[in-house]
Formats: sequence, C-alpha cells, structure tokens
Amino acid sequence: MKPETTAKVANNAITKGDVLAAARIAGIQAAKRTAELMPMCHPVLVGSVAVNFSIGDDYVEIEASVETVDRTGVEMEAMTACTIAALTVYDMCKSADRTMTIDGVALWEKSGGRSGHWQRPRPTPGAEPPGSGSLPT
Amino acid sequence: MKPETTAKVANNAITKGDVLAAARIAGIQAAKRTAELMPMCHPVLVGSVAVNFSIGDDYVEIEASVETVDRTGVEMEAMTACTIAALTVYDMCKSADRTMTIDGVALWEKSGGRSGHWQRPRPTPGAEPPGSGSLPT
Amino acid sequence: MKPETTAKVANNAITKGDVLAAARIAGIQAAKRTAELMPMCHPVLVGSVAVNFSIGDDYVEIEASVETVDRTGVEMEAMTACTIAALTVYDMCKSADRTMTIDGVALWEKSGGRSGHWQRPRPTPGAEPPGSGSLPT
Amino acid sequence: MKPETTAKVANNAITKGDVLAAARIAGIQAAKRTAELMPMCHPVLVGSVAVNFSIGDDYVEIEASVETVDRTGVEMEAMTACTIAALTVYDMCKSADRTMTIDGVALWEKSGGRSGHWQRPRPTPGAEPPGSGSLPT
Amino acid sequence: MKPETTAKVANNAITKGDVLAAARIAGIQAAKRTAELMPMCHPVLVGSVAVNFSIGDDYVEIEASVETVDRTGVEMEAMTACTIAALTVYDMCKSADRTMTIDGVALWEKSGGRSGHWQRPRPTPGAEPPGSGSLPT
Amino acid sequence: MKPETTAKVANNAITKGDVLAAARIAGIQAAKRTAELMPMCHPVLVGSVAVNFSIGDDYVEIEASVETVDRTGVEMEAMTACTIAALTVYDMCKSADRTMTIDGVALWEKSGGRSGHWQRPRPTPGAEPPGSGSLPT
Repeated sequence: MKPETTAKVANNAITKGDVLAAARIAGIQAAKRTAELMPMCHPVLVGSVAVNFSIGDDYVEIEASVETVDRTGVEMEAMTACTIAALTVYDMCKSADRTMTIDGVALWEKSGGRSGHWQRPRPTPGAEPPGSGSLPT
Repeated sequence: MKPETTAKVANNAITKGDVLAAARIAGIQAAKRTAELMPMCHPVLVGSVAVNFSIGDDYVEIEASVETVDRTGVEMEAMTACTIAALTVYDMCKSADRTMTIDGVALWEKSGGRSGHWQRPRPTPGAEPPGSGSLPT
Repeated sequence: MKPETTAKVANNAITKGDVLAAARIAGIQAAKRTAELMPMCHPVLVGSVAVNFSIGDDYVEIEASVETVDRTGVEMEAMTACTIAALTVYDMCKSADRTMTIDGVALWEKSGGRSGHWQRPRPTPGAEPPGSGSLPT
Repeated sequence: MKPETTAKVANNAITKGDVLAAARIAGIQAAKRTAELMPMCHPVLVGSVAVNFSIGDDYVEIEASVETVDRTGVEMEAMTACTIAALTVYDMCKSADRTMTIDGVALWEKSGGRSGHWQRPRPTPGAEPPGSGSLPT
Repeated sequence: MKPETTAKVANNAITKGDVLAAARIAGIQAAKRTAELMPMCHPVLVGSVAVNFSIGDDYVEIEASVETVDRTGVEMEAMTACTIAALTVYDMCKSADRTMTIDGVALWEKSGGRSGHWQRPRPTPGAEPPGSGSLPT
Repeated sequence: MKPETTAKVANNAITKGDVLAAARIAGIQAAKRTAELMPMCHPVLVGSVAVNFSIGDDYVEIEASVETVDRTGVEMEAMTACTIAALTVYDMCKSADRTMTIDGVALWEKSGGRSGHWQRPRPTPGAEPPGSGSLPT
C-alpha cells in the first residue's frame, strides 16, 4: 500500500468515506454470515466481534476477534471478518492505488473448546504483520 | 500449507469433502453477493465467473475472472471470489493444518471500461504466486 | 395430500395462518433470490412474478410465471418460485399431514429469448397436474 | 430425465461443471437458510447436513439428512436441501434436456424430538423413487 | 393515510395484492434477519413472531411481538418487524397515496431478561397510535 | 430522544461505537437489499446511495437519497435506508434511552421516471422533521 494511501486512510481523507469505520462494520457483518459463505461451515451464534486496525507506513494491519458460547470454533468467523474488512479497505482505496495486496491472513490464537488453547508459532523477526488474530480478552 | 495437505487436496482425500469443488462454488456464489459484503460496492449483474486452481508443492493458487456487461468494474467481485475460495480451502483443511496463510490477494489484470486495460507490473522473480487474476478469455 | 388438509387450506383454517398467501409471497421472494440458491445461475433482474394456486380434492396445484427484460432465461426463477411455494404449503400443513409429496415440478412453457417459444409436450391423459408453468400474459 | 443426460451427469461430462458437487453444496447451503425461505419456519442451528445421490437409468435420486441439537424439527431443512439440489441438477442439465421433472419430494424418516420416531409407510412396489429421506446414522 | 386507502386495505382491494398478508410475512421474515440489518445486533434464534394490524380511519396500526429463549433481548427484532411491515404497506399503497408517513415506531413493553419488565409510560391522551408493542401472551 | 443521548451521538461517546458511521452503512446496505425485504418490490440496481444526518437538540434527522438508471422508482430504497439507519441509531443508543421513537418517515422528493417530478407539500410550520427525503443533486 502506498504511504500516501495509508496517510489518507489515517486522516479520513479517502473520498469514498470513512474507510476504517466501513471496514470494521463490513467485517463484523461478514462474521455473522460466515456459514452462508463457507459451504462446510456450521452456523453459529457469534457473540462479540471486534475488528481493529493499526496503520503502518505502507500497510493497514487488521485484527479480528470473535467470541461465542456455542460448541463450535469461530476461527472462520474471525478470518472472514479480517478478509472482508481488508477487501473493503481495498475497495475504498482502489481508485488511488490498484497494486495493494492482502497478505498474511492467518489464525493467531484460539482458546476454549475441545482442542484447547493454541497460539501461532512466533514468526521470524521482520516477517509481515499478521492479518488476523485473537485479541486477549 | 503443508505438502501433505496439498497432496490430500489434490487427491480429494480431505474428509470434509471435495475441497476444490466446494471452494470453486463458494467463490462463484460470493462473487454474486459482493455488494452485500462491501458497503461501498455497487450491485452489478455479474456474467461469467471462473475460479481456477493450481496446486503447488506447498500452496494452492487461486485465479478468478469475472465478466460483466454492466457499467461498473468487477475487480471486487473477482477478489471476493478468490478470498472466499481461499477461506473455504482453509476451512476444509484446518483440522489438518492450522498454520496456513492466505497471501498475495491482488488484482492481476483488468480490461474494458472507462479506465482501459491495466496489467499488474511483473513481480520480481521468486515472488509468491498471485491469489487473484483475470484469465484471458 | 389428504382431502381434509386441502379443505382446511381452501377455508383458511390452518392454524399456522393463511397458507396460500404465505406460499405466494415465499415463492415470489425466492424467485428474486434464485441466483443465490443455484450456484450456476446468473443473477437477473426479474420483472413480474406471479404465483397462482388451484386446489383440487387431494392436491394444491401451483403455477408460477416470471417475466424479465434481461438477456437470460428465467425458467429457474419460475421453478424456484414453485418449489419454495410448495415447500411452504408443506411446512404450514405438516402437523396435520406428514405424507404429502411434491410432484411434477416441470417447465411448462417458455417464450422469448434466443431459443424461441417452447411448450411442454402434452402429458398423457390422467397424468398428474403440473407443478410449474408459464401463464399466458 | 433422458438416459444420455444421466450418463453425462455420472461421467461428469456436463459442460456447466460437476453437477453433483454443485448440487450437493447448493443443497447444504439451502438447508442452512431454510428459515429465510419459508416464512413460518423457525431459525435453527443445523448441525450436519448430508446430501447424497444415486444415479439410475433415467433419474437422479437425492437423499438429504439433517441433524440438530435444537428444539425444533429439521424436516423442512432436509426437504429444502433436496429440492434445491434437484433444481441445481435441473439448472445444469437443462440445455440438454428441458423435460426433466422433480418428483416424489417427501419426508422419509424422522427421529428424536417430541413427536418421536416416524417412518414413511412403504410405497407400493414399482412406485417412483423418493426425493428425500433421512439416512440412517 | 387517506381514508380511501385504509378502506381499500381493509377490503383487500389494493391492486398489488393482499396488503396485510404481505406486510405480516415481510415483518416476520425481517425479524429473523435483524442481525443482518443492524451492524451491532447479535444474532439470535427468534421463537414466535406475531405481527398484527388494526385499521383506523386514516392509519394502519402495527403491533409486533417477538419471543426468544436466547440470552439477548429481542426488541430490535420486534421493531424491525414493525418497520418492515409498515414499509410494505407503504410500498403496496404508494401508487394511490404518496404522502403516507410512518410514525410512532417505539418499544411498548419488554419482559424477561436481566433488565426485568419494562413498560412504556402512558402517552398523553390523543397521542398518535404506537407503531410497535409487545402483545400480552 | 434525550438531549444527553443526542449529545453522546454527536460526540461519538456511545459505548457501542460510532453511531452515525454504523447507521450510514446500515442504511446503504439495506437500500441495496430492499427487494429482499419488501415482497412486492422489484429488484433494481441502485446507483449512488447517500445517507446524511443532522443532530438536533432532541432528535437525529436522517435524509437518504438514492439514484438509479433502472426503469423503476427507488423511493422504497430511500425509505428503507432511512428506517434501517434509524433503527441502527436506536439499537446503539437503547441502553441509554428506551423511549426513543422513529417518526416522520416519508417521501420528500422524487424526480425522473414516468411519473415526473414530485415534491411533498410543505408541512405546516412547527411540524416534526422529515425522516426521509431526496437530496438535491
């Protein structure tokens, strides 16, 4: 992402509107509809969904966390929230910058459930920022 | 993606079912619903949607192409098809391999419309494979 | 369908509500969402959708007709309207009658478009009533 | 259904793609959205959904089974899966064969819940194959 | 609303069809999809939804009640049912009467849940009729 | 609406998040899905959708305008955008203020199309603010 695009996002100067507000809501809404999008995903009543952003020089990092009291894991909901939020950022910035890419969409942490706590092995230093992760709660 | 996971995908040996068939359909269906997912995307009647896969040693490459006769560009539809197809691959393989990441989602080529033909500058040799691109038709 | 069930439908005496009104609207709404339901169906802006019923001794016959000015045929929209209307009848009557079946869903007539006018060959006398057909307009 | 059409389906030779894979996924996805399609259907979190096919000389038989831990029955989900799968088969084969019909959509078996186990009375010999039924689990 | 429009609604004489039947179903269907419409609404499995109408001289009063066994309140589901039902009335009558307004959409009563029973303070005499309220059950 | 609630909305101090950003996006998204919500509404490809707010002492006024090049009017899309935006405001503020009402949802101006330009007759002075209207373009 070009530095001038991230600057515009940070200053809410993209002409299509408030990019991060739109991306956050798009991510939250997509999390709730994950089972409609993934054929083999069970429907689940998601509880809280959080989508957060941090803006770097030439990237926007997106973290999503999803909670549920249902019996199924919700990592697909979190990853769907991340990717749809990222696509929304792309959509709203694309007239300024067509070469943006979405990278590093990954599961960062998962807790609760049958399979217990899991955390992604630390990436090597200098690796690209994660696109998805569970926030500590 | 672990080589044994790509091998299972290639041999249709994932217990959740035919991964590429499910991912293709998920991608096609998502392309048709892009405007429901992206707040600032105009609804458009997509014409043909193609989602294709090539399986490498440790990755599955996904290419989507979308055509329309409408007045709006359909790159968001193609990129949505790619990411939802990729998430479907993740969903169906995640019990075997939690460390998969989705990388390199990008616009590869766009033609027609007001803005004319556009092609992504060649990546440097050795770069990761593209997640998204327009197939020649 | 048991004769006492068709009688209740005709007299609007099913406890779940007005069966034919609900089935008509369910059919119309489903016609508009056909492309979300059929993976290989192109989205199309349907124009008028009509769903009509005639009640026989032991069946409810459903006819749907759909019009469009778009370039694609809309027979899937008409057949989707018919089947969803039929399933709605089933759903609202099932506590009274679990043995109902849905039969004879078929394309009856199609006109306009590249493939020209087509009419289903006459069924042999005594055959079951059609579940789907294009009304003359 | 014409025997040459069932042969093409069996050999995955329909130009629109893998018919049974598409129909299976369409059926599964529709089962999850049943309450959106049937006005009087309560939303329910469906658990496993299975859609299976057997190809006869001149028909494709479709069986769907749905499980849930919720308090409501899921026969409408199974019947919706069957009909949408059947319509998907129709859609993908219709350019080759317009006279196909969908017949015998019916509830075959239901277990659990307040109303206990129920099994459809045996059809008379030679009757048409069922469109819907609960697989033994 | 013009008195001649309410008369037509009462006599089922609106050319677009049975207004109250369509509005009731639209309201019920919308209640089930509230979380898709409101970004910050948690998905909830709604139980019974009732939408009722009373026709006055120059207005149609709409009351919706929603029940659930889930942990979340369902007032948004009831208010969504009311407003979508009201918009459906508007849509089907608008060719006869463009000056209709939707007024007084409000929460009337809520019971159960952490926050206990709540009832709207009595409006002053002569105030407009409520657009939404919980029916006694 | 209580003055302290409007103040919180204006100062972006509602704990559930940025109310007007969420309401705007909810309204825009709902406009695109109007035909799914209103049974007798024809699907239409909406073009630009604008949802704007002005905050008064004890109310939030919402104006929506929708444009299309399709053959059908889009007043239902604008009114749906307004009411869903209003419900979103209600949803995000309801823990602070349960007595809010939605009033004055009305068509304010319509231009283009067969029926020509139409403007709502001026309300009498002191009347409540409109909930919906076409912005001049």
